[in-house]
Amino acid sequence: MARLVMKFGGTSVADMDRIRNVARHVKREVDAGNEVAVVVSAMAGKTNELVAWCREGAPLHDAREYDAVVASGEQVTAGLLAIVLQGMGIEARSWQGWQLPIYTDNAHATARISEVNGTELIKRFKERKEVAVIAGFQGLHKESGRITTLGRGGSDTSAVAIAAAIQADRCDIYTDVDGVYTTDPRVVPQAQRLDKVAFEEMLELASLGAKVMQVRSVELGMVHNVRIFVRSSFVNPEEIDPRANPEGTLICDEADIMEQQVVTGIAFSKDEAQISIRRVQDKPGVAAAIFGPLAAANINVDMIVQNVSADGATTDLTFTVPSADYERARQTIDKAKKDIGYDRLDGATDVAKVSVIGIGMRSHAGVAAKAFKSLAEQKINIRAITTSEIKFSVLIDSAHTDQAVRTLHTLYGLDKK
Amino acid sequence: MARLVMKFGGTSVADMDRIRNVARHVKREVDAGNEVAVVVSAMAGKTNELVAWCREGAPLHDAREYDAVVASGEQVTAGLLAIVLQGMGIEARSWQGWQLPIYTDNAHATARISEVNGTELIKRFKERKEVAVIAGFQGLHKESGRITTLGRGGSDTSAVAIAAAIQADRCDIYTDVDGVYTTDPRVVPQAQRLDKVAFEEMLELASLGAKVMQVRSVELGMVHNVRIFVRSSFVNPEEIDPRANPEGTLICDEADIMEQQVVTGIAFSKDEAQISIRRVQDKPGVAAAIFGPLAAANINVDMIVQNVSADGATTDLTFTVPSADYERARQTIDKAKKDIGYDRLDGATDVAKVSVIGIGMRSHAGVAAKAFKSLAEQKINIRAITTSEIKFSVLIDSAHTDQAVRTLHTLYGLDKK
Repeated sequence: MARLVMKFGGTSVADMDRIRNVARHVKREVDAGNEVAVVVSAMAGKTNELVAWCREGAPLHDAREYDAVVASGEQVTAGLLAIVLQGMGIEARSWQGWQLPIYTDNAHATARISEVNGTELIKRFKERKEVAVIAGFQGLHKESGRITTLGRGGSDTSAVAIAAAIQADRCDIYTDVDGVYTTDPRVVPQAQRLDKVAFEEMLELASLGAKVMQVRSVELGMVHNVRIFVRSSFVNPEEIDPRANPEGTLICDEADIMEQQVVTGIAFSKDEAQISIRRVQDKPGVAAAIFGPLAAANINVDMIVQNVSADGATTDLTFTVPSADYERARQTIDKAKKDIGYDRLDGATDVAKVSVIGIGMRSHAGVAAKAFKSLAEQKINIRAITTSEIKFSVLIDSAHTDQAVRTLHTLYGLDKK
Repeated sequence: MARLVMKFGGTSVADMDRIRNVARHVKREVDAGNEVAVVVSAMAGKTNELVAWCREGAPLHDAREYDAVVASGEQVTAGLLAIVLQGMGIEARSWQGWQLPIYTDNAHATARISEVNGTELIKRFKERKEVAVIAGFQGLHKESGRITTLGRGGSDTSAVAIAAAIQADRCDIYTDVDGVYTTDPRVVPQAQRLDKVAFEEMLELASLGAKVMQVRSVELGMVHNVRIFVRSSFVNPEEIDPRANPEGTLICDEADIMEQQVVTGIAFSKDEAQISIRRVQDKPGVAAAIFGPLAAANINVDMIVQNVSADGATTDLTFTVPSADYERARQTIDKAKKDIGYDRLDGATDVAKVSVIGIGMRSHAGVAAKAFKSLAEQKINIRAITTSEIKFSVLIDSAHTDQAVRTLHTLYGLDKK
């Protein structure tokens, strides 16, 4: 017997047929003797509809009212799933965020969970064998008594927080992919599904575009050491043996991964633009003078590369932004030219970032060097390099992205056997 | 300055344009210095959609889950109206049933309000001039902490209960008609809108098919003496002078109606069927033997006429049911023949009930007699008669319904001058 959280996203509960499919997944686990808390999103499309109405109501709308409106989507799904489960003869009840309650701060629309009490759920597991069906994405601000929401993708975070609160053995994230891959299979057909990936690696993969889970939920899982399991909801629920190891990817503490690969995956993003500021004054406060105005303009800066000044007076500084923000970013820097003090701006919109991720890098020297050599052999020019403990990224011409990803995927032995 | 509750039904908040129209009605009252609580229904069609999903989920679904699902419609409208009001520069916030809270019993799907505390709303009127936007139809069962709903049309009841709790000067029910009429204007073009109607009269008119408001809300208004004002939401909000007497019908205590008409209105319903049980045993328990099985079969019995037995042993008993239930009702009685003991069943499906309502009847003799004479002159045969203190009804052939209604409307001086 295990205690499980099962989370289903919007496409998995898009209509009554899909909700019945979800119920059959739940039934399988209940029949196997497991204690189950289910976390559901709104039906696909519902949240967008509600958000659009809020925007139509007033462009600058009160986030507290927005939260009250958009939280209704999850409320509906939770009630409907409870009804379907009961119809299958399974004890179940729905829980809204305010009923459990899931307490959050008052950062409406992007609230962070502060407290979840799992005592009542555990009591009901024991006394009534009752499945808890919990509306994801929503919470309650204790002091004001108002509904909050956790931001898009927030149901992942709800699921992980509840898993921590009830000390679940595993938090299953059912989604439209069957796990986390070494890279995008559309680019590299040899991409393999990873059996296990460490939290830290997943954080790098997710923020680089793997898009399987909300980044915050992985952080939360890391802090509370919740074993998160990414699996597909589009398999026949009855074809899964709940006693066998399920197919998917376990996101877990690195200590739980026996044979750590040196490189776990290759991530990339194509819609990047590069801006290089030439001969910037090398003095305290210059980085703030550059990135302050960009942040104020709500432009998301990704890579930042600044080399040590050669002449002790000026240096070159390169950063990347989403290519859609390229022109705005140039104008923003241009306006701040007097404050920053630089010679000229260079830039390019046709660049891509390719990143190599692996916890094993920490203990293996020369991992990046191999990549540079291999890319050079392919005549792929590297524009800039950044590194962290478990990742390095190169900026290249976007025309070479696929080629670079395939090369590195093979180089680090990630191709399917 | 007055304190008002303004209630808007589903067609009045069917889309964002309509919600903006509602907001303009609210703004008019706020600008006139009034303290305002708004009660809203779900967007037209939303509740039906949610109910259909619940039924699809399981035919016999948990009413607690049903309530959680269907209450979401009002949640959305309340938040959206608050957003639109704020966008117009009006202080506003939404309240869910559980937030206020509106406590109810635990008769899920048909809950009755037990307690509404208006203190916080009044405080906010005074301190912040804040408009309260309250989700109608929903409540909270205190002990279980679960969402309840009040049944279809329940927002009327929410509005009246809130009006009582905040000691509102008036509870405005905005609807798609501009008031309560002396009879159906489609049958009698001379029908007039009533300026005032007593609670008791409205109860008789509503249950007889006037269909302007939920009957329970009128009962509640009567108990708490809430002045309910029925008016149209489909007028240009800016064309109404909030300081002038608005157009509509006030439902109030009879003491507030100076010149009481003898007859206030003529109601009718065409889809009636009549069943007469001939030579029923005139003994204790026979009525129970007849109406018990009908109630168990969920057949709604309306008029019941039983005369005093002539021979001391048997009597005839007549009742009406909706014509759709006629065959079922006959079969039900037939099955219970041994328990009841009667000679034979007669019946007719082409009958109509015409009712004359007026509080003034109490103090005026001969009101009904005038009608009988007038109908006889028109050669309209009366099948059965029932009377109450402020109403009498006649059962006639449905072919003569319109003629009878017009005759009585003129007879009692209700035609427009």
